[in-house]
Amino acid sequence: MASDGKLKLLGLWTSPFVIRVRLMLNLNGLSYEYVEEDVKNKSELLLGSNPVHKKVLVLLHDGKPICESQVIVQYIDEVFGAAGHLILPADPYDRATARFWAAYVDDKVGPAWRTMLFAQSIEENVDGATQAIAALETLEGAFQDCSKGKDYFGGDKAGIVDIVLGGYLAWFNVFEKMIGVRVMDAERTPLLAAWADRFRALDAARGILLEDVDKVLDFLKAFFS
Amino acid sequence: MASDGKLKLLGLWTSPFVIRVRLMLNLNGLSYEYVEEDVKNKSELLLGSNPVHKKVLVLLHDGKPICESQVIVQYIDEVFGAAGHLILPADPYDRATARFWAAYVDDKVGPAWRTMLFAQSIEENVDGATQAIAALETLEGAFQDCSKGKDYFGGDKAGIVDIVLGGYLAWFNVFEKMIGVRVMDAERTPLLAAWADRFRALDAARGILLEDVDKVLDFLKAFFS
Repeated sequence: MASDGKLKLLGLWTSPFVIRVRLMLNLNGLSYEYVEEDVKNKSELLLGSNPVHKKVLVLLHDGKPICESQVIVQYIDEVFGAAGHLILPADPYDRATARFWAAYVDDKVGPAWRTMLFAQSIEENVDGATQAIAALETLEGAFQDCSKGKDYFGGDKAGIVDIVLGGYLAWFNVFEKMIGVRVMDAERTPLLAAWADRFRALDAARGILLEDVDKVLDFLKAFFS
Repeated sequence: MASDGKLKLLGLWTSPFVIRVRLMLNLNGLSYEYVEEDVKNKSELLLGSNPVHKKVLVLLHDGKPICESQVIVQYIDEVFGAAGHLILPADPYDRATARFWAAYVDDKVGPAWRTMLFAQSIEENVDGATQAIAALETLEGAFQDCSKGKDYFGGDKAGIVDIVLGGYLAWFNVFEKMIGVRVMDAERTPLLAAWADRFRALDAARGILLEDVDKVLDFLKAFFS
């Protein structure tokens, strides 16, 4: 375990953005204190650490707050990656390609996730699932290009695209039970389905990818009540 | 002038995203071929270079396409910045802070810009201007923190926040004439107003910050007709 300074994460266990930061911390073998926030009654520490957005998540490194998941992931990469687990390729053009696809995941899978999560009707659920499926079909091609026949978008090891998509991956089983649609399906996107199996089996992913779907459904019931 | 490879930019002169990339190229003293795209009749080169989004902008470096303005800006920084104009601080925590505010600009000023641009009613115009003013008031505080009393968000020289906000700055005079509201006002945000004067006067900004407001209004009239 690296231990360059004390790390504390103010999070929400179901958030795909919190999940990606936890994946990143785990991949780097970093120990950290995890504090679960009640988003209906946020802590003073959270509000004081993220005065602009006043929301989860915040990573405190030796007491200094860092906000926004993509910013936090890059911070961890720059501070701890060289001794841990770098998530961007060395070549600038390959880095640009990885950043392009990471942005694509947030631009396309993110809104689909929100649509399914907040859907008020079957039509909205179908709309969200359709958006997600279309994005994953595009990402199936991206996986072929980025992985170069290896196991992850990042090649031999999980990179930035794996981590960003991994946060949403956690939700796909939840949506399957909620709305009856398997958005990441082995027939439609076989490379991604196989990637998902490998990704879920990573040590870094253990216990944080919303394995207990019923627990998430109970959380949502309480959250929206 | 640096000349590590041939650079070609497929752009749209009014786009805040194209403007930020041109600012970045200019700050680095890079010569490049600029190709104006007709967004109603896109070139084969554009469609082939950005097959995912099929839109401006694309930077071609020795024929290899890079898409998405934030990705392009980071690519230029990584390939040319060390010999040119680095836009991120050296310290990882300061880098995280700069990235946080660059993301804030795109998250808050970006939607306000879109709302004003596509407004169908006075109410929508007012709504967009109100969003922009609120974001700029927050950025006034950010300027104080980031600039540490110097001229730019980046300190002594323009950094990533300056460049990202600079793309939208180009539009503020246009909106003033279009809808009669000065969103960046010296009484409300004196630090930003003074920053804007300095930024517009940079050599790197000359000729690309939509100085001819009537020409932009004519472009919009033709675009929306």
